[in-house]
Amino acid sequence: MKNRIVKNPSSKRGIKRLRKLQKSIAERQLDAILISQLENLRYLSGFTGSSGWLLISEKKTVLATDFRYVEQAKEESPDFEIIHAKRELSAWLPDVASDLRLHKLGFEANCISYNTHHKLSEAVKTKQINLALVPTTDIVEELRSVKEPGELEFITKAAALIDIALEKAKTIIRPGITEKELAWEIEKFLRQEDSEGIPFEIIVASGTNSALPHARPTEKIMRPGEPVLIDMGARINGYCSDLSRTLFLGKVDKILREIYDVVLKAQITAIERIESGMDALQADRLARSIVEEAGYGDAFGHGLGHGVGLAVHELPTIGYSSTNSLADGMVFTIEPGIYLAGQGGVRIEDMVVLENGKARLLTKAKKDLSF
Amino acid sequence: MKNRIVKNPSSKRGIKRLRKLQKSIAERQLDAILISQLENLRYLSGFTGSSGWLLISEKKTVLATDFRYVEQAKEESPDFEIIHAKRELSAWLPDVASDLRLHKLGFEANCISYNTHHKLSEAVKTKQINLALVPTTDIVEELRSVKEPGELEFITKAAALIDIALEKAKTIIRPGITEKELAWEIEKFLRQEDSEGIPFEIIVASGTNSALPHARPTEKIMRPGEPVLIDMGARINGYCSDLSRTLFLGKVDKILREIYDVVLKAQITAIERIESGMDALQADRLARSIVEEAGYGDAFGHGLGHGVGLAVHELPTIGYSSTNSLADGMVFTIEPGIYLAGQGGVRIEDMVVLENGKARLLTKAKKDLSF
Repeated sequence: MKNRIVKNPSSKRGIKRLRKLQKSIAERQLDAILISQLENLRYLSGFTGSSGWLLISEKKTVLATDFRYVEQAKEESPDFEIIHAKRELSAWLPDVASDLRLHKLGFEANCISYNTHHKLSEAVKTKQINLALVPTTDIVEELRSVKEPGELEFITKAAALIDIALEKAKTIIRPGITEKELAWEIEKFLRQEDSEGIPFEIIVASGTNSALPHARPTEKIMRPGEPVLIDMGARINGYCSDLSRTLFLGKVDKILREIYDVVLKAQITAIERIESGMDALQADRLARSIVEEAGYGDAFGHGLGHGVGLAVHELPTIGYSSTNSLADGMVFTIEPGIYLAGQGGVRIEDMVVLENGKARLLTKAKKDLSF
Repeated sequence: MKNRIVKNPSSKRGIKRLRKLQKSIAERQLDAILISQLENLRYLSGFTGSSGWLLISEKKTVLATDFRYVEQAKEESPDFEIIHAKRELSAWLPDVASDLRLHKLGFEANCISYNTHHKLSEAVKTKQINLALVPTTDIVEELRSVKEPGELEFITKAAALIDIALEKAKTIIRPGITEKELAWEIEKFLRQEDSEGIPFEIIVASGTNSALPHARPTEKIMRPGEPVLIDMGARINGYCSDLSRTLFLGKVDKILREIYDVVLKAQITAIERIESGMDALQADRLARSIVEEAGYGDAFGHGLGHGVGLAVHELPTIGYSSTNSLADGMVFTIEPGIYLAGQGGVRIEDMVVLENGKARLLTKAKKDLSF
């Protein structure tokens, strides 16, 4: 392995991200960090394979992957030295760390299994290498949570595409069609419009199925008067979008109309009042307090929202136990919901970006209860 | 939480699997095991949500999941007591374990993150509970590796569907079409024929792209004389199939024909000679030695095959560092490959089941080099 300093970056963007990470590493008094989370790999190196590791120190950037991805890694990650890792982490990392004279190595404690860590630390002991393994959490995830203009551009495209997909869905949805049929028509549309796959299985839940917040589409036929909850996303250049609407097939049941109005009020209020600098917990309260006041607090069991970027769920986490703070450049969903078992559910979800202290909508689909 | 013994199983199958697991737990002198791997959850409980935990002791079967899946869990897993887990594992497990008087709890060391284990063990200490956390690996995965007749039925259907998909692909493939177009046509066909999604992104790699063992389909147009490597699977009732063929568009380059013949010979030899009772390592050697003798050992960088079931990659692992043994009832792929960077690659993959000591083909697609 040669000592190669990053001299010829594929882009200023890549270098900027690595510099920020190297600063974080230095602040934590680490010699290097080991990255295993796949979106973090992509963010830092451009590598899109399904398996690999980055080892990043102040002077060195290494990407280790297996046989399947070595050629791909060379093409995608020109700023990284590529190692063909023939065996598991514990078989190659101690020697590489020793060659690079690393003594304090951070690892991603949420992304490495108990067993991988255990084997690695046994190998370090056996080889009598002076290397401390230091757990870290969310270092790269926090960098990723604030989007660069180039990232926002792709997210905006993915958001615009999902808005169009909802319009398309409205032309298909009707009594007599099954949930599965609608989900598949939406997916085909998205993929034909150049979405890179879909970031998560589309949810189409009608009637009482809408009370299951993460229902899978079934063979159930939609009937007049039922709510139809649709939750779907697109992906453009790796970046995701996420949108939910609840539509009604004709006449709306009184209770469902009531919860629709509560959810809508909670959602609009949160969008209007969320501010940069606010704790995510406080943002969650903006919507949750309205749902609670209406008497449906227990029926809103999930958080208000989540960051969206290379992953469809990333930082910030906006919920009743969040510890994040919100900042300009963050992109996230605002999606209160009320779910009444045996009756039905309503969720309304948009994506926003924080700019100049306030939330700007990225998804723009109408929020009419009928269509 | 009530003490409820499993009295009313949804099926004999479910009970039989739980009994086997409970036997394994007892043999390891554990009071209970905590299951977090999603296919293991499905196998043992029927639960298909994307997040949950099973806690299984000799007398008790608990499924903990979050708000999104509580209703679904009640429907899918009638043999389990459902706990609505509002917070992370460390927040609820110690109390539940204490209520059940568990003192030795196994956990899946490959499926729990360093951090989850760390927080759990801190919580146990803080609460001063007498509970040892014992790492285990592959207990349920080993049960899953030997298929029951009912499972084999679904796998056989998924295998038959992927054979038909290959025939369909042959009617579409031609010079001028892109890799992405072909992959999308195959996927649409599979989904319209009732595959439950697809178990992995379809690989269509033409020309020199076929030298990347896990290439993503690109906008590259297929040209006369090129190899086209297709690797794809279907899913029926949760069970996967997996098939690869390498087809040639017209006249075949001499080197590529040579490696095709080597791969085919290696594959057929392995299928004929693999036996129950054999070490997986030895099975790998059957094919690898032929590839090595032909001088292409370095160009066959992956294992010979992998188990297929609820997951598309599961036990047994058949490779150059395998430690498994093969047994009747196991279902796995046999897929040697040779990849020459800048020139092209060939992989031929079938699925087999071990019956009466020998391999029986589940996929039946022809292995002609042209079509």
